[in-house]
Amino acid sequence: MTREVTLHRFVNGITDGPCGDEVAVEEPLEIRIEGNPVAVAMRTPGQDEELAAGWLRSEGIVTDAAQIAGIVPRPGADGQRAAMVDVMLRDPSRFDAVRHRRSLVTNASCGLCGAATVDQVMRDFPPVTSPFRIAANLLLNMPALLTAEQGGFRRTGGLHACGLFDASGKLLALREDVGRHNALDKLLGRALLDGLLPLSEHVVFLSGRVSFEMMQKALAAGVPVVGAIGAPSSLAIDLAAKSGQMLAAFIRGDTMNVYTGTERLRGAGRLR
Amino acid sequence: MTREVTLHRFVNGITDGPCGDEVAVEEPLEIRIEGNPVAVAMRTPGQDEELAAGWLRSEGIVTDAAQIAGIVPRPGADGQRAAMVDVMLRDPSRFDAVRHRRSLVTNASCGLCGAATVDQVMRDFPPVTSPFRIAANLLLNMPALLTAEQGGFRRTGGLHACGLFDASGKLLALREDVGRHNALDKLLGRALLDGLLPLSEHVVFLSGRVSFEMMQKALAAGVPVVGAIGAPSSLAIDLAAKSGQMLAAFIRGDTMNVYTGTERLRGAGRLR
Repeated sequence: MTREVTLHRFVNGITDGPCGDEVAVEEPLEIRIEGNPVAVAMRTPGQDEELAAGWLRSEGIVTDAAQIAGIVPRPGADGQRAAMVDVMLRDPSRFDAVRHRRSLVTNASCGLCGAATVDQVMRDFPPVTSPFRIAANLLLNMPALLTAEQGGFRRTGGLHACGLFDASGKLLALREDVGRHNALDKLLGRALLDGLLPLSEHVVFLSGRVSFEMMQKALAAGVPVVGAIGAPSSLAIDLAAKSGQMLAAFIRGDTMNVYTGTERLRGAGRLR
Repeated sequence: MTREVTLHRFVNGITDGPCGDEVAVEEPLEIRIEGNPVAVAMRTPGQDEELAAGWLRSEGIVTDAAQIAGIVPRPGADGQRAAMVDVMLRDPSRFDAVRHRRSLVTNASCGLCGAATVDQVMRDFPPVTSPFRIAANLLLNMPALLTAEQGGFRRTGGLHACGLFDASGKLLALREDVGRHNALDKLLGRALLDGLLPLSEHVVFLSGRVSFEMMQKALAAGVPVVGAIGAPSSLAIDLAAKSGQMLAAFIRGDTMNVYTGTERLRGAGRLR
């Protein structure tokens, strides 16, 4: 459920070197019914049979356990962890493959372990080669700058926010949405429509957590630095390690954790 | 982006009657490319063209705005708000409908405004008719009981949790996952596999926010009461208002907001 990673913890731009911490594991799981891929969940491994069973119930495909003939976990491309669960029904005719094809990912045929998913994204999008660097103190200012503009969150407590910052640490645009992916799509969609991609001298800052898909969206827009108030997932870190992006999370008060791309931090020092 | 709703705010089980508050609006948006439905986002209305553009970029369907010939918002079944965006590409042959059919919902043909989505769910699942009631003080205890068992969150800060509580307020099971939907699918999937559905004398308690899909999953399992530490969305409230479920959110310290099903609260009083 968790994985040990190495990171740099900075306090006011000063670190005493690499340290270890645990992050939540995120890995794709494909759910198949009678051989048909019907959904891919970006989930924390474990209890995959439960996940599949609960999903089947929520989708109205089964109403009780007796309708399930079996749920068989299958290993991923690395031969190790389950990356797929095959569900067999007592009455296969209950299942309408077309009606229930819900969230097929585009790379459903590639093996679907986390590493394969990262590799697929790196084939679809170029790594960020911009030499952009940013000062630690500018990143530390971003939570307050973001919060000041989160009008919808202030009124409801129920909206995620994403902000686009320039090299001087100025907030250029902010989007709020009940879905964090939507907020980021809106922010980066605006930049796309305005002809501003790649955003090679910019920071995307998130009010919440950093999942794999959030890093993928930032990569698709060419963003070199992703900052967040919340925690990163294992797969977000894995992608950032290959994409050339800096991933800084838990940015709170005068501290932040930098998981990848420490060289993009300007004016940061190391205690000796 | 926000909507005014009526709720009861309880402090230690006492309310001074209905009051108003704003909640984040959640509504489905279908994205179509060249007439093909490719995704449904449960999003906050507004900037739908941006959302579509950003999604197209993240999926690798376009690399710049010049490849988009037009993005046309279409009204939903109620004739009012956009419930669909039609994207036209400069070069339609760039788009592979099969490869990019990502998260089609099962009810994609029903009009896809929020009201239609709620109606569809109410056709798929029976309302909760169990007379189950629960004392306010038991709900107020749940955040602490949940937190005490969130081992993965304590280690990473990056995992959502869902707990299943019985009528006495005892925590029966807890699941953690990077995705809140996954955590709930696992929790309710376990109950399904154990033959415990419908969970007619139970409370599902969420560490985070309550979206439409979280309420739908709880309804599919027959759960009469959903409690949460975070905020509810507008569509979660709309569904709960029809499903016979109590939806209590912002459960923190000695206060909670009850949006629907106040009659399920036992031992609660009203100031006179």
